[in-house]
Amino acid sequence: MVRQDKGAIVVAEGSYDKAMASLFLATTAAGLGMEAHVFCTFFGLNLLKRKARPKLPGMYRLFTGMFEKKMKRLAGVEGFQEIMETAKDLGVRFYACSTSMAALGMKKDQLVDGIEVLGASKFLDIAADSRVQLFIG
Amino acid sequence: MVRQDKGAIVVAEGSYDKAMASLFLATTAAGLGMEAHVFCTFFGLNLLKRKARPKLPGMYRLFTGMFEKKMKRLAGVEGFQEIMETAKDLGVRFYACSTSMAALGMKKDQLVDGIEVLGASKFLDIAADSRVQLFIG
Amino acid sequence: MVRQDKGAIVVAEGSYDKAMASLFLATTAAGLGMEAHVFCTFFGLNLLKRKARPKLPGMYRLFTGMFEKKMKRLAGVEGFQEIMETAKDLGVRFYACSTSMAALGMKKDQLVDGIEVLGASKFLDIAADSRVQLFIG
Repeated sequence: MVRQDKGAIVVAEGSYDKAMASLFLATTAAGLGMEAHVFCTFFGLNLLKRKARPKLPGMYRLFTGMFEKKMKRLAGVEGFQEIMETAKDLGVRFYACSTSMAALGMKKDQLVDGIEVLGASKFLDIAADSRVQLFIG
Repeated sequence: MVRQDKGAIVVAEGSYDKAMASLFLATTAAGLGMEAHVFCTFFGLNLLKRKARPKLPGMYRLFTGMFEKKMKRLAGVEGFQEIMETAKDLGVRFYACSTSMAALGMKKDQLVDGIEVLGASKFLDIAADSRVQLFIG
Repeated sequence: MVRQDKGAIVVAEGSYDKAMASLFLATTAAGLGMEAHVFCTFFGLNLLKRKARPKLPGMYRLFTGMFEKKMKRLAGVEGFQEIMETAKDLGVRFYACSTSMAALGMKKDQLVDGIEVLGASKFLDIAADSRVQLFIG
């Protein structure tokens, strides 16, 4: 049974633009009262690392910092870490792909708090009865 | 209530291949009688700029031009600008993400005619009752 | 009528991470008893070439080989070719976008066996009554 109030997002890239798009969509969905589930795999795992600072692809980190400041000044958009906190406060649930974790040799204590390590088939179960399903990568 | 005849696409990249994939899917959907809604955010905004000429990632513009000619000769595929016009003629609706516009300091008069500037939550409303939902980026 | 047990994936990138994400999702879906349909377009066509060896973006092929070995050792993940075979054994159906084939001047005999060459509108028909729809690229 598909639930209208549930959304599932897979994030497979770790760049700043994809990270922000994922968080925007997830927090917007949560703000509208939906259950939002975000599954991070491959490079998407970077978003869940402690002190993650994703950067724009093909550009210096410095430029991403400037862009982030501009986003804040012109559009009132918070930085990545702030939006991540907001997302968690709104109840967005984040998952780390167990296979990617193993393949990259990552341990759970490298991730921010409150992340569940999950297999792809478990996440597909969550996605299967979600109204919105998006792959970001 | 989900409508079978409605599709929603988010475009977050501005490269030629992603631009064409978005337009192909949207025009195909519109051609099948569906309502097609395309929300452009981040680099995807490039597609909506006047005289946009998206290029293949990591390649010279010249190569994209050659590829475009080859697409036309071998597969009868029109260029980006022509397909954009076809899409609009078929009733595909294009939206520019208001937050991205503000963050990039873009004004509405930099966009081609007939684009609606919209917030992410408004678009999520459109996506929520769409049968097909795709994130291209 | 939407079928709960049917999934449709569009693959528009040919890199190792996107290839593996596509195959993981498709085989997981098939393993759960779903019908899985994978439509390869643009650079995604690379996955269907005989002896395809997708590589990680922006890295030497050697590094991808090392990563693949690490994936196998640490997470028990098979290589691309092995998973492709598994996917076909599980009944995942792969399609090559006819327009992309024509544009890239590719012939069907360059593709692995068992691939159907299909137009985008035909695939949209398949996607339209699928429960899960993802664009990977």
